[in-house]
Amino acid sequence: MISCTVPRLRSAIGRVRPVDSMWRHRAHAHLDGLTKPRHSLGRLEWIAARLCAIQETLTPRTAPRRIVVFAADHGVTAEGVSAFPSVVTAQMVGNFLRGGAAINALARAVAADVCVVDVGVAGDIDTSGDAATFASRRVRPGTRNIAQEPAMSGDELTSAVGVGLDIADAAAGAGVAVLACGDMGIGNTTAASAMTAALTSAPPSEVTGTGTGIDSATVVRKIAAVTRALRVNQPDRDALEVLRTVGGLEIAAITGAYVGAASHRMAIVGDGFIATAAALVAAEVCPPWLDYWFAGHLSSEPGHGRQLRHLRQEPLLQLNMRLGEGTGAALAMHLLNAAAAAMNEMATFESAGVAARQEPAAREGAS
Amino acid sequence: MISCTVPRLRSAIGRVRPVDSMWRHRAHAHLDGLTKPRHSLGRLEWIAARLCAIQETLTPRTAPRRIVVFAADHGVTAEGVSAFPSVVTAQMVGNFLRGGAAINALARAVAADVCVVDVGVAGDIDTSGDAATFASRRVRPGTRNIAQEPAMSGDELTSAVGVGLDIADAAAGAGVAVLACGDMGIGNTTAASAMTAALTSAPPSEVTGTGTGIDSATVVRKIAAVTRALRVNQPDRDALEVLRTVGGLEIAAITGAYVGAASHRMAIVGDGFIATAAALVAAEVCPPWLDYWFAGHLSSEPGHGRQLRHLRQEPLLQLNMRLGEGTGAALAMHLLNAAAAAMNEMATFESAGVAARQEPAAREGAS
Repeated sequence: MISCTVPRLRSAIGRVRPVDSMWRHRAHAHLDGLTKPRHSLGRLEWIAARLCAIQETLTPRTAPRRIVVFAADHGVTAEGVSAFPSVVTAQMVGNFLRGGAAINALARAVAADVCVVDVGVAGDIDTSGDAATFASRRVRPGTRNIAQEPAMSGDELTSAVGVGLDIADAAAGAGVAVLACGDMGIGNTTAASAMTAALTSAPPSEVTGTGTGIDSATVVRKIAAVTRALRVNQPDRDALEVLRTVGGLEIAAITGAYVGAASHRMAIVGDGFIATAAALVAAEVCPPWLDYWFAGHLSSEPGHGRQLRHLRQEPLLQLNMRLGEGTGAALAMHLLNAAAAAMNEMATFESAGVAARQEPAAREGAS
Repeated sequence: MISCTVPRLRSAIGRVRPVDSMWRHRAHAHLDGLTKPRHSLGRLEWIAARLCAIQETLTPRTAPRRIVVFAADHGVTAEGVSAFPSVVTAQMVGNFLRGGAAINALARAVAADVCVVDVGVAGDIDTSGDAATFASRRVRPGTRNIAQEPAMSGDELTSAVGVGLDIADAAAGAGVAVLACGDMGIGNTTAASAMTAALTSAPPSEVTGTGTGIDSATVVRKIAAVTRALRVNQPDRDALEVLRTVGGLEIAAITGAYVGAASHRMAIVGDGFIATAAALVAAEVCPPWLDYWFAGHLSSEPGHGRQLRHLRQEPLLQLNMRLGEGTGAALAMHLLNAAAAAMNEMATFESAGVAARQEPAAREGAS
């Protein structure tokens, strides 16, 4: 058993069971009998079989589906690492609640509901909108500056992870079949870069990108901040210590939600660089967790490819996106819907009265 | 003007106008003001801007959307090139009409209607299903064997292309904003391979694949059939002559529907190897046509990548699918929906009261 210093997380980890591959085999046998050339739906069949294994069924469901956006601020913005001021975190949360952000549009397009969680925003939030549900679970108003000290204390880490576990419990209570987590937090690509460097042993310069669109002088400052964060905090490779010292409150909450969702046997759709930093932690503290997670897309942040290779996952989509919020996951959710639809709605060769493939001998006779 | 021996097609070609890039620029200017880092939606922004240019609007629509599956048989199956008997073409049309095929499931998942057109099926069709609309427009019961003689006469080509033009006219009459064409026809990867070899100057062995899943002995026969078809028919590189001599009735109909759809300013979503053989012809006889066409996915048929490179198009999806029917296009349609949703539904920095990016000078001051 992997040691885990966060008691509730340890207990959730204990409830994450590896999926039974028998269900994958049964799903593939069913798919082979459907009216299409064998394996011709490619990765859609792989998705369908994984959904079946997660849900232990041959009739997987992908509704209800939910996208939870965890928002928090980052003390490291004091280093001048972002193109946007910190106040944008709170402003964007207001935008999510009024329905005007990219994640609102993309979630509507895939009929997913959106839940926004303040786990550590620094500023005041206008909560007048009702386009998304809102949970006010602020652990503290942003992390400390990781370039100078640990992002959070042990108790704060426990609280932030607990917020995510609570969100997963609530989703399970609502019968959610497919969950995605997104992020909002000015400065959080700096934290994700530091985490990725620590957890994949990559040099900071290889996993630090332009985030929201910074100029080259800012990239230099950002790489320096990541390097300093790792030197000051020395987190080594203990995943929860990396999360505590150089991570973020929203990344900790996503980690909790990820593990919690798997403990409830939900399918989880991964998003971009920030959410995948949480995936690195979840996979490290709970290896069977990866059975529940689909790599939704590959973002254009350079560290994201490194993360996915570390996790040995192939992304479903590659659209040069780099927005976060759960937007990549929202697009990939449609592929899960389509895979489940093929599995559930297609006729078999037998039921449709369609002739199956000819045996080689029969083909020889026909030519 | 490119010469065109099919009068109605020539007239439709004359109505295909290149899109006005001013609309793309206006769309990108609008996208830059939405509440997200600039360009952070990646290819989704590119899709949105192209939709705007096609529709000459800043509020693009993607509904109603329609997938038309053109079905026809192929005389070349006499060469023993397929894993399935020809009778499957008619049986699968019946399956489409009853709603049991992959395209039915994937079209439902993206809320597209399905229309099935018999443009050249050889056998009897059970038309009792009502899950899709059906048009009986059989030009002849399958092509002649291209390994021995031309697939169709000039009159038959004109008729088959005309079926596609009629389908595009009907879609325009129904207000369809996004159209995709799929194919059903046992033996049609052989025809598509011959067309692709002729139109891209590729050796037959590089553009001939395993189709519905044939063994290596059948692949050898298939490459031989493609080579013989090109030697017997000598179509050179005249696109319509390639289509007539080594193509298929459904591929000719798709070509007509493709050009017709662009003449009505519909967005067109490409599918796999068969439909893209029609795209090669459409792009050759009508270069501005490509402005209306989105490469939906890259299939695992080896010739499909060659086709897309020839058209200089990057596929939206790569999921190792090789089914046809319009299934790849159906999945990609969701990306068009999502792109239009982002364009239409997102708030601007101004309307949302979100601070825009800091200028470098301001950032310096903050650090």
